[in-house]
Amino acid sequence: MKHITVVGNLAFTSPQFSLDDLPGSSGRIDVLCRSVNSAFLLSHGIRRDIQLHLILRGKGDPPKILTLDGGHLKHLNPDERSTAALIKIALKEGLGLDSGDIRRSTPGITIRRGDLYDLIEEGGFDPIIYLQEASRDIRGIESEIEEWLDKDPLFVLGDHTGLNRADEKLLDDLGASRISVGPRVLHADHCIILLLNEIDRVALKFREKA
Amino acid sequence: MKHITVVGNLAFTSPQFSLDDLPGSSGRIDVLCRSVNSAFLLSHGIRRDIQLHLILRGKGDPPKILTLDGGHLKHLNPDERSTAALIKIALKEGLGLDSGDIRRSTPGITIRRGDLYDLIEEGGFDPIIYLQEASRDIRGIESEIEEWLDKDPLFVLGDHTGLNRADEKLLDDLGASRISVGPRVLHADHCIILLLNEIDRVALKFREKA
Repeated sequence: MKHITVVGNLAFTSPQFSLDDLPGSSGRIDVLCRSVNSAFLLSHGIRRDIQLHLILRGKGDPPKILTLDGGHLKHLNPDERSTAALIKIALKEGLGLDSGDIRRSTPGITIRRGDLYDLIEEGGFDPIIYLQEASRDIRGIESEIEEWLDKDPLFVLGDHTGLNRADEKLLDDLGASRISVGPRVLHADHCIILLLNEIDRVALKFREKA
Repeated sequence: MKHITVVGNLAFTSPQFSLDDLPGSSGRIDVLCRSVNSAFLLSHGIRRDIQLHLILRGKGDPPKILTLDGGHLKHLNPDERSTAALIKIALKEGLGLDSGDIRRSTPGITIRRGDLYDLIEEGGFDPIIYLQEASRDIRGIESEIEEWLDKDPLFVLGDHTGLNRADEKLLDDLGASRISVGPRVLHADHCIILLLNEIDRVALKFREKA
């Protein structure tokens, strides 16, 4: 299983936001919606081997981890608004959750209390990879990517404000490597597309060799 | 200047659609909105060297060509809804336009009557490249991409229903080449991300050589 996490530094943890104005009313949950689209949607189907963990740190009842599991997801459409509606339902379910509790809101979507640190501590991920501009290029590390295919890698991305210093220290302390997907600085959802394409290509070669 | 066109086979040519239900009410203008995001948005800025031509063939007053010019675009936000609102304004301006007329709706956005054929006939593009699954891989044609850098290439993509037979015949008759961006079949907006990343990479190498 491949895991992706996007940290929403301002993303509301309350369902009190407007679907009619996601950028202005939700702490940029629109950024997270686009990451959901990128992580799961193929032209005809859903990537079943992905789990996407959204870290929400904004107004309401923070922090929360909202996990979308491609193996069980239903009702996922490509448009932002319907994805935001699924997030809204999950946030409502998550209000006042005790630490350690986990609640399922709709098929394939769960919510629990926690931040990036908790996600990593509980997840057993290996390796952990921080997608960051101006790092080592993802092209040219094919044998590394081939190793990911049989593991449970976690790919960490920041929202439009990026990861903070404490996040970066946490990742450094854990020995996370840093990888870049291209020469331009891109939005998280665009980075996810490039990341998954790279893995698709290595997986295809790997199957052809086998 | 690089040109991208996305054909919206059902996309409304009337502004009578609901921003609250783009997938259900607009002939999938949401697909076009995501293509706009992919074509122009960098993490901090807009790709100024792109023109995106949306071909709209759906209900209202078809066909229409809606052109977004990165060199002059303003008010472009990453969320779908605000982009759909810009398209709505353009469609209103475009109602009843005479053939040959062109109207500017908001900065960087113009609308005129026409279909894919008209776009190509008037555009003077060279080369024309049809992005299609299971075609020649975009990786490994670096010298071709390097040639694009000084030309005015047009990249043609279909919406969720793809190009029709007449479109494909038109492209074949014009000697358009077919290129694929990876091993999976992806949505148009995801293909645009992969295409531009490939061009970014070649452009960077080219600058480093120079």
